[in-house]
Amino acid sequence: MQSPEKQQKAIDLSHHLSDVALARQTSPLKGLARFFGRPGMISLAGGMPSPDYFPFANISGDALVPESFAITANQSESSLSWLWKLFGGSGRKEKTSTITIPKYADRPEDINLATALQYGMATGLPALSKFINEFVGKTYKPAFSDWTTLIQTGNTDGWSRVILTLSNPGETYIVEDWTYPSAMAVTQPYGITPVGVPMDGQGLRSDELRKLLGEWDEAARGAKRPHVLYTVPVGQNPTGLTTSVSRKKEIYDICVEYDVIIVEDDPYYFLQLAPYSAKFDRASSRVDPTESDKWLSGLSPSYLKFDYQGRVIRLDTFSKTIAPGSRLGFFTCNPRFAERFERAGETSTQAPCGFGQSLIGQLLTTWQFDGYVRWLHGLAAQYEARRDFLIDALAEEFNLKQSLGTTGAWAGLTVLSASAKPRGLAAMSEKFAFGQQPYFSLVPPTAGMFLWLKIHFENVRGFKEGDEASLEIKLWTKLAEAGVLVGPGYYFGTEESARDSAAEGHFRMSFSLATDQELKKAVEILGEVVRDFFQNPE
Amino acid sequence: MQSPEKQQKAIDLSHHLSDVALARQTSPLKGLARFFGRPGMISLAGGMPSPDYFPFANISGDALVPESFAITANQSESSLSWLWKLFGGSGRKEKTSTITIPKYADRPEDINLATALQYGMATGLPALSKFINEFVGKTYKPAFSDWTTLIQTGNTDGWSRVILTLSNPGETYIVEDWTYPSAMAVTQPYGITPVGVPMDGQGLRSDELRKLLGEWDEAARGAKRPHVLYTVPVGQNPTGLTTSVSRKKEIYDICVEYDVIIVEDDPYYFLQLAPYSAKFDRASSRVDPTESDKWLSGLSPSYLKFDYQGRVIRLDTFSKTIAPGSRLGFFTCNPRFAERFERAGETSTQAPCGFGQSLIGQLLTTWQFDGYVRWLHGLAAQYEARRDFLIDALAEEFNLKQSLGTTGAWAGLTVLSASAKPRGLAAMSEKFAFGQQPYFSLVPPTAGMFLWLKIHFENVRGFKEGDEASLEIKLWTKLAEAGVLVGPGYYFGTEESARDSAAEGHFRMSFSLATDQELKKAVEILGEVVRDFFQNPE
Repeated sequence: MQSPEKQQKAIDLSHHLSDVALARQTSPLKGLARFFGRPGMISLAGGMPSPDYFPFANISGDALVPESFAITANQSESSLSWLWKLFGGSGRKEKTSTITIPKYADRPEDINLATALQYGMATGLPALSKFINEFVGKTYKPAFSDWTTLIQTGNTDGWSRVILTLSNPGETYIVEDWTYPSAMAVTQPYGITPVGVPMDGQGLRSDELRKLLGEWDEAARGAKRPHVLYTVPVGQNPTGLTTSVSRKKEIYDICVEYDVIIVEDDPYYFLQLAPYSAKFDRASSRVDPTESDKWLSGLSPSYLKFDYQGRVIRLDTFSKTIAPGSRLGFFTCNPRFAERFERAGETSTQAPCGFGQSLIGQLLTTWQFDGYVRWLHGLAAQYEARRDFLIDALAEEFNLKQSLGTTGAWAGLTVLSASAKPRGLAAMSEKFAFGQQPYFSLVPPTAGMFLWLKIHFENVRGFKEGDEASLEIKLWTKLAEAGVLVGPGYYFGTEESARDSAAEGHFRMSFSLATDQELKKAVEILGEVVRDFFQNPE
Repeated sequence: MQSPEKQQKAIDLSHHLSDVALARQTSPLKGLARFFGRPGMISLAGGMPSPDYFPFANISGDALVPESFAITANQSESSLSWLWKLFGGSGRKEKTSTITIPKYADRPEDINLATALQYGMATGLPALSKFINEFVGKTYKPAFSDWTTLIQTGNTDGWSRVILTLSNPGETYIVEDWTYPSAMAVTQPYGITPVGVPMDGQGLRSDELRKLLGEWDEAARGAKRPHVLYTVPVGQNPTGLTTSVSRKKEIYDICVEYDVIIVEDDPYYFLQLAPYSAKFDRASSRVDPTESDKWLSGLSPSYLKFDYQGRVIRLDTFSKTIAPGSRLGFFTCNPRFAERFERAGETSTQAPCGFGQSLIGQLLTTWQFDGYVRWLHGLAAQYEARRDFLIDALAEEFNLKQSLGTTGAWAGLTVLSASAKPRGLAAMSEKFAFGQQPYFSLVPPTAGMFLWLKIHFENVRGFKEGDEASLEIKLWTKLAEAGVLVGPGYYFGTEESARDSAAEGHFRMSFSLATDQELKKAVEILGEVVRDFFQNPE
């Protein structure tokens, strides 16, 4: 799959292992392993119940077809649900096919409950692991040859195993200035602390990363130089920003220079979206006319693609592509780290749930690679439509002014600033719109499921510096009382994030769940509450 | 459910929390929680995908009926599979009924995929949690009123959360001399060390426990007095021993006196078996004629029943009663500990897998309490038959002599000693049997899935003291080479276990998985290998 010159081996990165990871023993039974699973062997060794006692003769599911969501306008007929969506129909009739997992399979390699519901290795169901491994090879094309994949119980479990394998208490790790709160909540009780690096329009700032690492003062900081970078490079949570290809290369090289392990938590990878265009400017069909295989190869590459040393640990999850309740994901990394993650899994979750593994395994092996890619492509088109709908709704409720970001995180990006829409007589006056100060601004995301609003509290009547934090929670509460919940900015902040937010507050709005009707209603409520609040903040 | 005088409240045991557990923060969003889930609220707050994108329109399973395994001899007709078993039929035709979980339910309280496959609270699916809570109340009858239950991802995850919540690195905890190796593997990398206490026929020895705690020398031990007891009280792994009711009371009182938290890991609770009788002495029907509700109330009580202070953390799992691949279990404990376990779950596994939760939840709510108890009763009857079959097979292969244990772990218990069966002319001589030294001995277990063999290596030709360990692995290897795997004793040992095993080795044999035919074959191989080995150990 890779050209010979790219077939590089992982270097030995064992010196990154934490004391706990180093102390974790391999099972004392490993020395006897040559006997396990031999054909004809009678095993009285394990505490395994007979599969006869598993109370399911089979499980099955009516699975949606991979083409369930349209990617081209004239393809709608292949997917009833797409039509239903267009007409806002709730009486849905989806196209499905039934997959079934029997307790006992005719061929041993077929997925079966006798295996899936038995105690299993922390490496997971072989058929599913095989699919995942091939999927990674074809999709991310890692630059070193001896990468491996390992199943885990969702990316929170994955990240938890990673950071406790790589870091000792008292250490620090690098994150984007604003980041996923649960990632920080995982490390916090162990005294392992995030240090923020700002982002700009290209993603995590490589100049700031180099500065942080190069100028790290161990004595002043009370901690040695960070050796782990946790990053959400695509559709970043909460900012919605995506790290560019050239920026990824720069960051990778800096991490080589300073010997930093890159943990790429990438749940939104397949939700890469075409740039937003205003409604009047948009092609009549907002769906993507390219073939799914071309769409896949056109996605922004993973850090794995540049990783000739094996210093990237990639975390993939089925939470956004199948369902969050799957509690299933996988590591891609060098085998030395993978072995430690497997050991950590054995003493916590063991294997992921066999019901989930077998249903998802059967779904994916039935769909096959091309079917799954088609499914992902359809999903991306759905999220694109959702993003467009939400921003369109904002454009109807507010006066949305487009400009080019010149400073800070949004330098070089298209910024939309929302101010009051002229009403009544004012609508006649061109001056009105120009005179208005914006309530908030945003960058239309090109990936993921979030709009990140900067709230311009400096434009609130009677604003005094230092009011931002209390204004953010006040406005959040007024919105909630009016019936709309958004993510309050402070929830996503690191210690360092304040430098980005002079006089600003933030809200994260998700366009992943609400119906069009709800999104429309939510934006109207946002309009009412914001207009009132900027006049009467008390 | 409890008499008023038993309605005691949990005492505050917060001083047992580890530094990590104390440092674990509640989500900063908790302050805003009053708005969550309000009817009519439009949520743009979470990163939740629309359930429309979950690729299953429904999932279902053909579930065995609760009566699938006989409990009375004349009930066989209600269960085809029982008949099939009797005739050794592999062409199985089980009685099943189909359960289905739709994506969207008509009634919101019904189990549905839109909820089960969404991000969920670490507390799990409400219908399943409710079932579990009621099950615990009816079955274990905790002695304090404000106990609570919390779902987890199997008992390894459960124990892992418990020990890291209760112990700091460098601390010790108490276990049975021989214990579940994975429990020790969980704590080992954190430098949290098990200290063994011997067992006797009544279970963990209370006199030795008191001695250990009373005479604990912090300076000599290099660790403060243990404040956690990890115990497998029923069908203990690996010894198969069960702690008696009076012993549980004694142990509980000592734990009150020395302020020790009791962690009751009880996967074999519902596999409590009637005492073994030799085949010729056994009633013609080996199944249990009692009603299932009477059977349930006749089981040895949980530590919860004596726990008036809330110092018991009980771990239940569906691994032995539904299937190991369920990766689903639950804590029963005081609410203060449960809250910390919930926080620990949020930053690792989050909720258990939604596919598993919904299938098991639907199964249990369909079966209802009485149906599940009937299922458990049938399972116990199956394990009883399996245990009997294995010991019967040993009695055919070896000369099995019954005696009353007088010293050590087996004092007061019925012990079976296996020596060579007289063959040919020797069979005529009564003297032969008396003159033979035993190869191994065992106590027929009254719970669980394991036979624990003491191998009498002192009777091996040319035995010298100190040879036990190497002989154990030699014999294990010869058995494996001949086609039978058992659990080698050393795998289950603590530092303290050696005191129990002068000149002995141990094997753990499981009767849970192999077919009757395989068990028979395995015992024949064991006979050949053992007879040869005791003559020619090299």
